[in-house]
Amino acid sequence: MSTAEETAGGEMQPWAEVTPDAARRLLVAAVEAFAERGYHATTTRDIAGRAGMSPAALYIHYKTKEELLHRISRIGHDKALDIVRSAAQGGGSAAERLTDAVRSFVRWHAGQHTTARVVQYELEALGPEARAEIVALRRQTDAAVRGIIADGVAAGDFDVPDVPGTTLAVLSLCIDVARWFNVDGPRTPDEVGALYADLVLRMVGAKE
Amino acid sequence: MSTAEETAGGEMQPWAEVTPDAARRLLVAAVEAFAERGYHATTTRDIAGRAGMSPAALYIHYKTKEELLHRISRIGHDKALDIVRSAAQGGGSAAERLTDAVRSFVRWHAGQHTTARVVQYELEALGPEARAEIVALRRQTDAAVRGIIADGVAAGDFDVPDVPGTTLAVLSLCIDVARWFNVDGPRTPDEVGALYADLVLRMVGAKE
Repeated sequence: MSTAEETAGGEMQPWAEVTPDAARRLLVAAVEAFAERGYHATTTRDIAGRAGMSPAALYIHYKTKEELLHRISRIGHDKALDIVRSAAQGGGSAAERLTDAVRSFVRWHAGQHTTARVVQYELEALGPEARAEIVALRRQTDAAVRGIIADGVAAGDFDVPDVPGTTLAVLSLCIDVARWFNVDGPRTPDEVGALYADLVLRMVGAKE
Repeated sequence: MSTAEETAGGEMQPWAEVTPDAARRLLVAAVEAFAERGYHATTTRDIAGRAGMSPAALYIHYKTKEELLHRISRIGHDKALDIVRSAAQGGGSAAERLTDAVRSFVRWHAGQHTTARVVQYELEALGPEARAEIVALRRQTDAAVRGIIADGVAAGDFDVPDVPGTTLAVLSLCIDVARWFNVDGPRTPDEVGALYADLVLRMVGAKE
């Protein structure tokens, strides 16, 4: 199963890397259940039921509900880091790389908003070890964006008095797309990405 | 009981307007419980227990769990609207009014981040009537900020190609403070407010 499997809309199937099929169906069911009722209100029985399986079948793949959340969070955070790292390591000026990072990060948070909400809002339900792992991934994502902004400042392309604070704001702006994005709303993920890339270039005082 | 009652830190007591005392204690307990475990995982028994009351005592003040969430959401959204309206109707240039709106809106979302999270993330748990009422308040908040930005454009002070999109982004940036703000973190609510006001003036292309 290729991890690059795409739907007609060009969105990555976020769980394509999860095998076998039963494990993937359970993960998708868990994302939906957590998004709808919250982590604490969801039972493994609910998740198994949504996936059309028995609770016993669930335990073959996941020992606990937390293991499901951890797996979802890990895949989501790996993907987020992957997106900003590709942009950071791409060619071009800092402005071009920042544009690329914001556009892809926004597209992911809009296109996968249900997953992104679970990943972002249920962080505190993870146990200490799992949480430490996820926090480390978040720090790397933050560092990749901070690196692009710092490069732009060093090259004289950006004017940023507070690089860590601006990095935080840029990531926060993109992440919150998962909260408000509505598939029936007036803007496509690509349009939000383009708008946000322009706003972020303004935030960093990019020279025209 | 004055609604302007303040703590030592200058934060408004957000529930000072709720009387009698038992009704207010239940509301505070509900905010904590919803924030910790989510709305669906919280029972009225949990809330009563946190407030040191019996479930029967809770029902004197609130008929259902949804009524508690509705009350919390209504007060939170009234406060948010109040903040941006005061700023919008204040004196000064569009840049000054936008600065004021962002600073106070951010301070509220940082200082009251637990309440703000419940208010922002549990919207879908409200019934259709309550939700329609809250959506109307959100539209008014959006309109107040959009009005300041449109004034700045009309006066030639701001350069904004997409006024509704920029308004959405400005509010989203401020709201997401509730997700990441950490009282033990390096920035005070005032410092975040000052940083964000500067970033928002950049987003609207404010003339120096």
